[in-house]
Amino acid sequence: MISNSQRQASTDPRAALGARVETVRGRSLEIAAPLSAEDQCVQSMPDASPTKWHLAHTSWFFETVVLQPHAGNYRVFDPRYGFLFNSYYEALGARHPRPQRGLLTRPSLDEVLAYRAHVDSALASFAAEADPVAWSAAAPLIELGLQHEQQHQELMLSDILHLLSLNPLQPAYASGAAAEAVALQPAGVEPCAWRGRPGGIAQAGAADDAGFCFDNERPRHRVLLQPFEVASRPVSCGEFLAFIDDGGYRQASLWLSDGWAAVQAQGWSAPLYWDLRERAAPLHFTLQGRRALDPAAPACHLSFYEAAAYAEWAGARLPTEFEWEAAADDGLLGDVGSVWEWTRSSYDPYPGFRPLAGAVAEYNGKFMVGQVVLRGGSRATPPGHARSSYRNFFPPAARWQFSGLRLARDAT
Amino acid sequence: MISNSQRQASTDPRAALGARVETVRGRSLEIAAPLSAEDQCVQSMPDASPTKWHLAHTSWFFETVVLQPHAGNYRVFDPRYGFLFNSYYEALGARHPRPQRGLLTRPSLDEVLAYRAHVDSALASFAAEADPVAWSAAAPLIELGLQHEQQHQELMLSDILHLLSLNPLQPAYASGAAAEAVALQPAGVEPCAWRGRPGGIAQAGAADDAGFCFDNERPRHRVLLQPFEVASRPVSCGEFLAFIDDGGYRQASLWLSDGWAAVQAQGWSAPLYWDLRERAAPLHFTLQGRRALDPAAPACHLSFYEAAAYAEWAGARLPTEFEWEAAADDGLLGDVGSVWEWTRSSYDPYPGFRPLAGAVAEYNGKFMVGQVVLRGGSRATPPGHARSSYRNFFPPAARWQFSGLRLARDAT
Amino acid sequence: MISNSQRQASTDPRAALGARVETVRGRSLEIAAPLSAEDQCVQSMPDASPTKWHLAHTSWFFETVVLQPHAGNYRVFDPRYGFLFNSYYEALGARHPRPQRGLLTRPSLDEVLAYRAHVDSALASFAAEADPVAWSAAAPLIELGLQHEQQHQELMLSDILHLLSLNPLQPAYASGAAAEAVALQPAGVEPCAWRGRPGGIAQAGAADDAGFCFDNERPRHRVLLQPFEVASRPVSCGEFLAFIDDGGYRQASLWLSDGWAAVQAQGWSAPLYWDLRERAAPLHFTLQGRRALDPAAPACHLSFYEAAAYAEWAGARLPTEFEWEAAADDGLLGDVGSVWEWTRSSYDPYPGFRPLAGAVAEYNGKFMVGQVVLRGGSRATPPGHARSSYRNFFPPAARWQFSGLRLARDAT
Amino acid sequence: MISNSQRQASTDPRAALGARVETVRGRSLEIAAPLSAEDQCVQSMPDASPTKWHLAHTSWFFETVVLQPHAGNYRVFDPRYGFLFNSYYEALGARHPRPQRGLLTRPSLDEVLAYRAHVDSALASFAAEADPVAWSAAAPLIELGLQHEQQHQELMLSDILHLLSLNPLQPAYASGAAAEAVALQPAGVEPCAWRGRPGGIAQAGAADDAGFCFDNERPRHRVLLQPFEVASRPVSCGEFLAFIDDGGYRQASLWLSDGWAAVQAQGWSAPLYWDLRERAAPLHFTLQGRRALDPAAPACHLSFYEAAAYAEWAGARLPTEFEWEAAADDGLLGDVGSVWEWTRSSYDPYPGFRPLAGAVAEYNGKFMVGQVVLRGGSRATPPGHARSSYRNFFPPAARWQFSGLRLARDAT
Ligand SMILES: [Fe+3]
Ligand SMILES: [Fe+3]
Ligand SMILES: [Fe+3]
Ligand SMILES: [Fe+3]
Repeated sequence: MISNSQRQASTDPRAALGARVETVRGRSLEIAAPLSAEDQCVQSMPDASPTKWHLAHTSWFFETVVLQPHAGNYRVFDPRYGFLFNSYYEALGARHPRPQRGLLTRPSLDEVLAYRAHVDSALASFAAEADPVAWSAAAPLIELGLQHEQQHQELMLSDILHLLSLNPLQPAYASGAAAEAVALQPAGVEPCAWRGRPGGIAQAGAADDAGFCFDNERPRHRVLLQPFEVASRPVSCGEFLAFIDDGGYRQASLWLSDGWAAVQAQGWSAPLYWDLRERAAPLHFTLQGRRALDPAAPACHLSFYEAAAYAEWAGARLPTEFEWEAAADDGLLGDVGSVWEWTRSSYDPYPGFRPLAGAVAEYNGKFMVGQVVLRGGSRATPPGHARSSYRNFFPPAARWQFSGLRLARDAT
Repeated sequence: MISNSQRQASTDPRAALGARVETVRGRSLEIAAPLSAEDQCVQSMPDASPTKWHLAHTSWFFETVVLQPHAGNYRVFDPRYGFLFNSYYEALGARHPRPQRGLLTRPSLDEVLAYRAHVDSALASFAAEADPVAWSAAAPLIELGLQHEQQHQELMLSDILHLLSLNPLQPAYASGAAAEAVALQPAGVEPCAWRGRPGGIAQAGAADDAGFCFDNERPRHRVLLQPFEVASRPVSCGEFLAFIDDGGYRQASLWLSDGWAAVQAQGWSAPLYWDLRERAAPLHFTLQGRRALDPAAPACHLSFYEAAAYAEWAGARLPTEFEWEAAADDGLLGDVGSVWEWTRSSYDPYPGFRPLAGAVAEYNGKFMVGQVVLRGGSRATPPGHARSSYRNFFPPAARWQFSGLRLARDAT
Repeated sequence: MISNSQRQASTDPRAALGARVETVRGRSLEIAAPLSAEDQCVQSMPDASPTKWHLAHTSWFFETVVLQPHAGNYRVFDPRYGFLFNSYYEALGARHPRPQRGLLTRPSLDEVLAYRAHVDSALASFAAEADPVAWSAAAPLIELGLQHEQQHQELMLSDILHLLSLNPLQPAYASGAAAEAVALQPAGVEPCAWRGRPGGIAQAGAADDAGFCFDNERPRHRVLLQPFEVASRPVSCGEFLAFIDDGGYRQASLWLSDGWAAVQAQGWSAPLYWDLRERAAPLHFTLQGRRALDPAAPACHLSFYEAAAYAEWAGARLPTEFEWEAAADDGLLGDVGSVWEWTRSSYDPYPGFRPLAGAVAEYNGKFMVGQVVLRGGSRATPPGHARSSYRNFFPPAARWQFSGLRLARDAT
Repeated sequence: MISNSQRQASTDPRAALGARVETVRGRSLEIAAPLSAEDQCVQSMPDASPTKWHLAHTSWFFETVVLQPHAGNYRVFDPRYGFLFNSYYEALGARHPRPQRGLLTRPSLDEVLAYRAHVDSALASFAAEADPVAWSAAAPLIELGLQHEQQHQELMLSDILHLLSLNPLQPAYASGAAAEAVALQPAGVEPCAWRGRPGGIAQAGAADDAGFCFDNERPRHRVLLQPFEVASRPVSCGEFLAFIDDGGYRQASLWLSDGWAAVQAQGWSAPLYWDLRERAAPLHFTLQGRRALDPAAPACHLSFYEAAAYAEWAGARLPTEFEWEAAADDGLLGDVGSVWEWTRSSYDPYPGFRPLAGAVAEYNGKFMVGQVVLRGGSRATPPGHARSSYRNFFPPAARWQFSGLRLARDAT
């Protein structure tokens, strides 16, 4: 188990959760701080959202899921915001179309910040004053709201990186001390080693008493594994450069059919944000702006297709999500959390999967087709957010996330 | 095991395979026989191919995979056909673009039939005259070519149905005696019952000695199942009408997110080919033309999204492909083979999967992402072609196949 | 006046028109004769129609505009054909979508030929038996139907050329003696000369007594011209090659903005059907198949954008449609009719323009925006069909017509 | 002649032009003043540009066309801005793609305002210090830059209206006193009357000594007109409502073919920004927010297609641009300048048209195909900018401009 938010609970669980609300919510503002109102308003593609929208949507989530149902005297900040900031919850009514989130120059950033303060204040009052029955009904939803906010914190970073990357001025998200905190591409990776695990039955998914987990991690269940080996670290930029130099992007035989079609249609010749025009001095675009590519850093901003093609080229494969989880639980994976790791598992429901009750039933379950599971976490993932049973998922062509890969192979 | 082509092998395996070539190849012509040259030339959408193209492509497969490498004196019919009739084999060179297959008014149908005769004759000569070494190298590829041809026979029927359905005249593919042979929607389905299976370890996939199987069915391996129940037959048209009448196509909560998006974008309100404008007298378009919808016939021409929404509405779920296979092997599924059955399994590789060697490595493996597994078979599937380990697969939005569903649920 | 169909009228106008019906209708079948049923069924792009569709549509026009309203005892061949073969007449009811004309494998070619025979026979009976009142009401519409059929005869040739051009086998439409009749690219063009015309008032459009003319050529009216000069012949292939060799397709400054966008988006580097991969031996695809490009033949298959860019490069311009018509009427244009000539006139209504009465009001007028006028005629234009006041029109990006250009310039 | 910027020239032409620079440039900032940085950054569709981009682009125009070539000591503000803020001048190098102008969160609004100040200051210095030779070379380009800026001032208003209209909050651009200045839909329109003009030769286009005019208004030339009548004012909202109530948007026979296709494809049922859900109390979205529709105000935000359909319904037609100009010069049009008026003239070059020399050759000429001429001016047009010879032009489907129509008809 990589991490567990429950451990942060101090003596009084209620006070502890209240404190966590403040900490986690505050971190969203810290992430937004280096950005201008303009930066926070624009949407770079339908898959990405403006920072301001993230800030508002995460507040709407608390308002809609926690405060309105459970805080009896809660006053809705603006009844029109439900339409604007509902992401995808059909049960919660009509929504502003996703590809048009960037058109919302109003409400202004200041108004959205006031919205956040209004919600924060209501959450604090609720934590202080709610009767025990209301509190115990609301507490799991507050925790869900915090985990939800943390997920959006990572999206804020991946989405702003995408926006800035499309600006010909190639501006940095942040610099100086603030930049170090988000330095997503650490140098210094040890030589890779293969680590074996015998086959047999393993446990997968989060146990009932494991603290917070998303519904898609449950129920915990037994899986049957073949003996396998897994790499001690993710594939590095230097290793991925060798794939490129060997013509990896020009050999159809290495690619899945849809992947090869994407290579052709999109003209891919390197991971997203890489600039190899000066092959001797490769660059990539990062939250710190254009930077030299560190060969020792993990390769990042890969689609599943690229991850799978690299693995094929390397004579290996990707681990399944169950292999990955077992290896993580057994301590074989070394330093997890630099890049999300594509697995060779489609995002299907676990046996006996039941979505959460109520509107949040739509949180995870309705996306369980056409996507691929990533495991681990990235430097953009809030500390303490992920764990070994955590199932991240994206369509196989997605490249704007902090996504890389780790090799696996059958044990011989 | 539903069926096994190997059982057809008579005393002399070589003579038997030669006879099968004649039978199977002949059946393709029988399928095309009711169609005019015009019918056989046109392509109704990029996913579908013209009948003439199927006839030529299956011949090209034998020519390229069997005759050129193994029949020393084989004379290529027309060197330009490799470009025209290669479907998706990157290793075999450049190809005519798939969406433009319908532009090939030349070669004419007569020329394609001559091509088929040329290949048939060469295969017969090869079976009669090949030395034992060449024969034993080629025989598995001949068998693969026959299985491939059978797959295209089903596609010929689903593709021609799609083309004719778009014709305002709503013409029948065939009528009279010829029509009976392809009457895909049989009446008379017994009441549905739940049949239970205990959990535990089951075998999945084709055994090494199981006769012909595609590479995606291997290796046979153990899977761990939870106790479950499965319906004794597929969902019927009458049952699916109840889903429609209950507003199934208008309730977002029943649908996967991508499914709901498809409902909205495509305006789906019933399975493909259904016509409910006269609700009291529902019709559907079939290979026999417009016909009354038989409530007792299995619901057909469903996407995975519709299958999953129906299951949700019914308070059940789809079986995984492993549940399906175990239930089939245990004899729980009753009469399989009326419609392909969508499972709740994405099409991922089996542990230890290895594609075939050579150009046919691209046959199955490169499609293992973004698709969903169907099991069973349909009335359009050639007799003896499918088996319990058979993995059919299509994108979740596909509706023009002969695809339905069977319910499953967790054992309580 | 280049030509005038009325001149063909012999002594008895009624008999003469009846004879013309037979001749003109017969010519459509001659054009279709070299093509298989497959060739005649397929549609290569939404702008083009299948030969079979042209054959049926022109018959539908007579049936709908002439026979049904005027031949009292006419029996409609098939009431469903109105839906299938109405092109764009909103007043005549719903229509099969234009981009799906190629899906109509039924009715078969044989059925369409029977349809034609049915209409031909009814027209012959009508010519023989109609009472004078009915005849005089119908005769102008019969003439319109013949002119309409001639327009479709040219479209049959341009559309089949487009279809065959997309076939990797590059098949010829016809060969031998039949090919000569459609040899669209004659050799031997005299050196080009400038021919001047003084300014002043000229007559444009067809006079009331000019015999058959389309409504868009009327009313005849006075226009005011500046002095200008016009080339004695269209631009030749050799001249257009010089434009290409000089980088014409790479110099934005030569192009209209929309034209340059088309060059970029479509990757144009030569006229449609040209193949300059072997620059020393340039080829083009024609109705006779791949042929050497004759430098002396007129450049053909140009868009308006390419015509205008060439003129810019040549230090000249295109003539307006009124300059063209005045020059034609004054005998300055030499041999007109090898290629349609793009003019520098958008297709706007003449002052006082009135569309025809009834359903045929939609024949021309509703297309008078967003298109450009071409004048003259091509080798694919039926003899006697065009005249100096004839206004052909296509969108500026169209290249599959037999379209070229002639230079003009202001008189100095 | 409606207006003439030259008249504003006071005693010293050089001082006068310098003063005009200050006035005109200042007005751009006034237009932007009610908008937040967020409002000014976002792009609502590829055809529209962000306010900030307009502010920068108009400065770039002065920098590139005036200061760099003529002000010897001019220091470029930022060499990267040429790429960002060049609109469409191929001769001036590569450009940021038009549909991505809204991604430019950097440079910030503050930086763009500093850019403007830098250019303003340099223009002032140049006016004060330039030697007479440099000044006389530059002065016409400064005037062009001012006229260009005025054109963009109108675009700023139409583009911001479009952006705000897509915001579900339906925010106003401005309110209070500031709003009155842009109140684009004045009430109180006199009853319409027909005003006749005899036929004959008229002058069209701007005379050589007419003061500033765009190249597309030249050369002045004679045109031949038929007698016609023109309405004394544009069509009003009340009149257009009658068209709607009479089923105007549902009668194909009223529409040009492309127009009817747009109605169907876009679901048009009223002019852009109109809201007729409460038919008894019609609304429209304006720069002041949602407002009651004044039946006496001129109908606005019409495409050419809608204008032409209305005229057809009214038994009239649109005037040609030459009829319009002659009527304006003869004083027949009453109060021009409330809405741009679609004419029945495609945007073609005048006889003898010559574009400006140098990079500004691309200013107008290269757009002369596929567009339709509008005449007059709107409430968003800067005072003194337009004149009777002024040729505005947009594609026929454009609706986001302040565009309406005036009826005309042939004199009987
Ligand atoms: Fe969310
Ligand atoms: Fe195949
Ligand atoms: Fe027609
Ligand atoms: Fe501009």
